[in-house]
Amino acid sequence: MIKPRTPPGIMELLPREQIAFQRMLDVIRRNYERFGFLPVETPVFELSEVLLTKTGGETERQVYFVQSTGALANAAAAAGSGRDEGEAAALPELALRFDLTVPLARYVAEHEHALTFPFRRYQVQRVYRGERAQRGRFREFYQCDIDVIGKDTLSIRYDAEVLAVIHSVFSELGIGAFRVQVNNRKLMRGFFQAQGVDDPQQQALVLREVDKIDKRGADYVRDTLAGPEFGLPATSVARILEFVAVRSTSHADALARIDAVLAQAGDAANDALRAGAAELRDVLALVKALGVPESAYCLNFSIARGLDYYTGTVYETQLVEHPEIGSICSGGRYEDLASHYTKSKLPGVGISIGLTRLFWQLREAGLIAGIAESSVQAMVALMDEARLDQALDLARHLRAGGINTEVQMEARKVAKQFQYAARAGIRFVVLAGEDELARGVVAVKDLAREQQFEVPRDELAGTLRVELEQARALAGR
Amino acid sequence: MIKPRTPPGIMELLPREQIAFQRMLDVIRRNYERFGFLPVETPVFELSEVLLTKTGGETERQVYFVQSTGALANAAAAAGSGRDEGEAAALPELALRFDLTVPLARYVAEHEHALTFPFRRYQVQRVYRGERAQRGRFREFYQCDIDVIGKDTLSIRYDAEVLAVIHSVFSELGIGAFRVQVNNRKLMRGFFQAQGVDDPQQQALVLREVDKIDKRGADYVRDTLAGPEFGLPATSVARILEFVAVRSTSHADALARIDAVLAQAGDAANDALRAGAAELRDVLALVKALGVPESAYCLNFSIARGLDYYTGTVYETQLVEHPEIGSICSGGRYEDLASHYTKSKLPGVGISIGLTRLFWQLREAGLIAGIAESSVQAMVALMDEARLDQALDLARHLRAGGINTEVQMEARKVAKQFQYAARAGIRFVVLAGEDELARGVVAVKDLAREQQFEVPRDELAGTLRVELEQARALAGR
Repeated sequence: MIKPRTPPGIMELLPREQIAFQRMLDVIRRNYERFGFLPVETPVFELSEVLLTKTGGETERQVYFVQSTGALANAAAAAGSGRDEGEAAALPELALRFDLTVPLARYVAEHEHALTFPFRRYQVQRVYRGERAQRGRFREFYQCDIDVIGKDTLSIRYDAEVLAVIHSVFSELGIGAFRVQVNNRKLMRGFFQAQGVDDPQQQALVLREVDKIDKRGADYVRDTLAGPEFGLPATSVARILEFVAVRSTSHADALARIDAVLAQAGDAANDALRAGAAELRDVLALVKALGVPESAYCLNFSIARGLDYYTGTVYETQLVEHPEIGSICSGGRYEDLASHYTKSKLPGVGISIGLTRLFWQLREAGLIAGIAESSVQAMVALMDEARLDQALDLARHLRAGGINTEVQMEARKVAKQFQYAARAGIRFVVLAGEDELARGVVAVKDLAREQQFEVPRDELAGTLRVELEQARALAGR
Repeated sequence: MIKPRTPPGIMELLPREQIAFQRMLDVIRRNYERFGFLPVETPVFELSEVLLTKTGGETERQVYFVQSTGALANAAAAAGSGRDEGEAAALPELALRFDLTVPLARYVAEHEHALTFPFRRYQVQRVYRGERAQRGRFREFYQCDIDVIGKDTLSIRYDAEVLAVIHSVFSELGIGAFRVQVNNRKLMRGFFQAQGVDDPQQQALVLREVDKIDKRGADYVRDTLAGPEFGLPATSVARILEFVAVRSTSHADALARIDAVLAQAGDAANDALRAGAAELRDVLALVKALGVPESAYCLNFSIARGLDYYTGTVYETQLVEHPEIGSICSGGRYEDLASHYTKSKLPGVGISIGLTRLFWQLREAGLIAGIAESSVQAMVALMDEARLDQALDLARHLRAGGINTEVQMEARKVAKQFQYAARAGIRFVVLAGEDELARGVVAVKDLAREQQFEVPRDELAGTLRVELEQARALAGR
């Protein structure tokens, strides 16, 4: 007898939780489709040679490699015979994807001539990382990505559209007030250059120090940046600390903040700073034109994201009431998606939602029950074996009318059947006793409203459908 | 520069094909939910120790093993040092699932106390097999499974419900007339026993010979079974060939066929034969009560499926016009799901649709275009940069009204934009020139019907929604 268990670092859900999770996936997919993004799925494994071109050490150490039984036996034989140690030590042929970006790059480069650019794709699949086992860290998790990929160029306007998608998704998910925080890597780079920090590596180190403000205090950071390691003038340090503290409070304020950075730089303003400011202004203007409310976005000049990957707009998204959860949706603009696979220049902009971790965090924070009303909407009770055929026929009628219906296949005490439906989260219990059948009606118990009513048999499915649609409308879904 | 490519044995789709595939997945999922099945997802890998308890040689050789970079390095070091050859040769800790049945067994055993029985679950995920590379054989493919699992017992009635689900799924998929072929392993076993073939192994060998009828002819099979290897009496051979040729032509004919088998056995009829006949009768009666039309099911006494796994009802599903495709949905009743993981007895009944292979076959047979109308339903054209804001606002209006909408972010020649929409399979192109904006209307070009009309701006989303719903209704979706 083997103990049944999942590997560590896996989030496996019970059916009711899975329904809640699936509804979130459906909302995300629906909103991605609403903005015209097309579905793509890629295989769970890629050729190691293809997958690992782009990755650095940290990511590479977390990769899962895949071997078929045959390949494994060959490797063991080679190692055992000492015949070819090089071969035994070679990487396995296949590896599990660790994100959806590298597979997208491979996909776009491979199918370049069959795609139309700008290419707008969404992809909702699981990815794999050999993380150290730790609470809230998962080795298998969903990523829900969109990207717009241009050929040679891609209008800055897509950066605004992507932000509108984030707004649309999280509005419908209904997990509380959120704010998309926007920055621009060009503006950031230009600002640091204007403060005399030219080297990108050095900029990264400064940002890392700045990140310590919350933990170690402003004085510590100020002393470090002015100290021997960085040797920045006190005025520059003050300006840096002021810059990264910027959080705009309205659309007009955001524009004013951009103007202020330019004004302060004065003659020291450089091309990068001007370009970044212009891009941010464009993005903000279009975000407004797309109908995103001012409360849903702001500038945050401290956001950098992957310093060697993103080159323009960067986004992070926070729950207003739960900043401790961190960013729930991040991304940005990059110069070139697939330089390892094609000579074509493919700039893009995209975002990712890590839904497994988000679901876990929301549940931990008590923001979702984690247990949803069942996907089963009605249960046909069976009180008398002799009426099984009628019960099956009622179920058929309900299903044909679009109601997800379970039928009790064996007669049990009615109380037991109600108990079952209540525990399972099924809203409607349908009963048809001798009396009801004779009158051409059925009895319906609505477990959500705790009330019972009768409807003509032919109107059953329609009536329940109306009730369910009302509930959906009330829930804002 | 690395050549971008997928590993062999993978079916990767272009976006339009992916939309067609996704629609099929959605139909399957919707029908599974309509019958009250609950979603379950399990991780792509399981502990090797847990996954490989149940499998025989053939399956085991096709398993993909998974190792993180760290584990791989350790194994190589151990092998290199010759320190511990046993360790290096040990199986990796993790393996990719090769079906959804073993993960279901593990899931039900692990979460037994949190589940309610009969437990009805559906699962739509990819599985992995290291098949030899071959046209139409995939190493990664979707399985779409349902199972009903009982605790200690499970009513035969679920066997009928599962058949009704098959009917519901394939009716909505709309890939042509199909027939669910039903048999019962008890009836089959009882019949062979009555012919003097008692040993299950021997029964399997006889069935294997019988399978050669199409290729080698009835005479060859008759001679083999009557020959030295099997030594069956001529009357038994005749009865066996007659039995396995049975295909019922109607509900009444099916019942008559069952009666005929019992009558012919006469005094030689045994418990298994009688039990199998009774089960088949029950299943047929309930299938009818569930509203499945007679043309959609028949008896086929030659169907055996996995001889050591299924114990009662077995199903195969054929496309009536395309028998060469083979079974597109198979399954049956089994005694005990999870005996390796729990002492509880868990009988079940279930089916599986291998959608990746089915999609490939349908495309090969020309039964689906493989290219669907886009999931993008409308495109807002942009003819003048100055009207970008209006275009974005129109898109917002359409999306809020439930229309999947792409907006042209940069002004181009109108002809180019129409060409793009046509190639992309987008049905509606929405235009708002100066003239239309002044009159509060927009122009819509319906590329499916090749006609153009004007609607008041506020009625745009509603109008398109009605058109799309009509198209859906006409397509029977």
